[in-house]
Amino acid sequence: MPLLNLGSNRIVLASQSPRRIELLKKIIPEFEVKVSDIEEDNNGITIPWKLVEQLSRQKAENVARQIPDGIIIGADSVVVLDGKALGKPKDNYDSFNMLNLLSSRVHQVYTGFTIIKKPQHVVISDHEVTDVKFRKLETWEIEKYIKSSQPLDKAGSYGIQDDGAVFVEFIKGCYYNVVGLPITKLFLALKKLLENNQNCSL
Amino acid sequence: MPLLNLGSNRIVLASQSPRRIELLKKIIPEFEVKVSDIEEDNNGITIPWKLVEQLSRQKAENVARQIPDGIIIGADSVVVLDGKALGKPKDNYDSFNMLNLLSSRVHQVYTGFTIIKKPQHVVISDHEVTDVKFRKLETWEIEKYIKSSQPLDKAGSYGIQDDGAVFVEFIKGCYYNVVGLPITKLFLALKKLLENNQNCSL
Repeated sequence: MPLLNLGSNRIVLASQSPRRIELLKKIIPEFEVKVSDIEEDNNGITIPWKLVEQLSRQKAENVARQIPDGIIIGADSVVVLDGKALGKPKDNYDSFNMLNLLSSRVHQVYTGFTIIKKPQHVVISDHEVTDVKFRKLETWEIEKYIKSSQPLDKAGSYGIQDDGAVFVEFIKGCYYNVVGLPITKLFLALKKLLENNQNCSL
Repeated sequence: MPLLNLGSNRIVLASQSPRRIELLKKIIPEFEVKVSDIEEDNNGITIPWKLVEQLSRQKAENVARQIPDGIIIGADSVVVLDGKALGKPKDNYDSFNMLNLLSSRVHQVYTGFTIIKKPQHVVISDHEVTDVKFRKLETWEIEKYIKSSQPLDKAGSYGIQDDGAVFVEFIKGCYYNVVGLPITKLFLALKKLLENNQNCSL
């Protein structure tokens, strides 16, 4: 039984990522999933935390338009090496190059989230960043991992929660942020939102 | 399909912890579980890394005596605050006090592991340590968490992988070490053992 008491609020996650769905279950027992149908638009933003907050807000706003009452949660993650964002790999070759780049290096994972409370239309955006250090990867390890198809749908071409776990030497920050949702920060934001709501300050 | 190729080696985990069983599956597809039947004896050791290595070795050695051929893995974890080990809570009252102590503080989680390869009886022991920072916990959060019974069987009275996840502000080090098994370090130790074995240097 998660710690958060959301009362009778309808909760909607604006993401169909199976990892985000699993993580949100850790703090919210029951919620719906609705996928935003917008093309993500980064508006030329290159600063990672601004980018993920902006994209998470676009997703949440899109789903919020379909719902009169409730709490909508959007999220977006990016993997950053030397200030440059690594997206999802285009193919196995791209995946190999990304993992080779990450080998023996520290990179950052940013996840932005936006919470929208309706009908008041309160909007909260925030983000979390975690340093991730990869150990030196051997070519056969990268090739075997790619063959498993696990990296293909993931930004940065790895999942810290799948077989990619053994690529990681250490992290500094929130682990769940690397998986796709910074649940401690999201938990605290939701708690604050509900407390304020109870005090009728919305 | 995990990255490690263990050939025809029989693998035995000397722990019935459901968390360790789940984690070992991330690097080894098939293994047996055998529980050591010894009383753990810390021999007066108080240095955390020495303690967890010693206890992991006792568990592995005990199971190794029952098996003529194979690779046996033992592990032991301890939660340390201000240099003092926190074991499993005795009762809800003890659990409350531990979580209250950990609130707003950084503590360390040590996990030691021992690998024994038979019949050569090669023994490798090592450990990992991770810093864990708790945010400030509210009394009702601790009480609600204790009511869920999740902390009762866990050293330090919390699980980073269960509802206790939202108590953690950040970690520095290996996440899986906090859950109960430092799988990257264990993976590398097993890889080295098998490479050496292949070269007949055992």
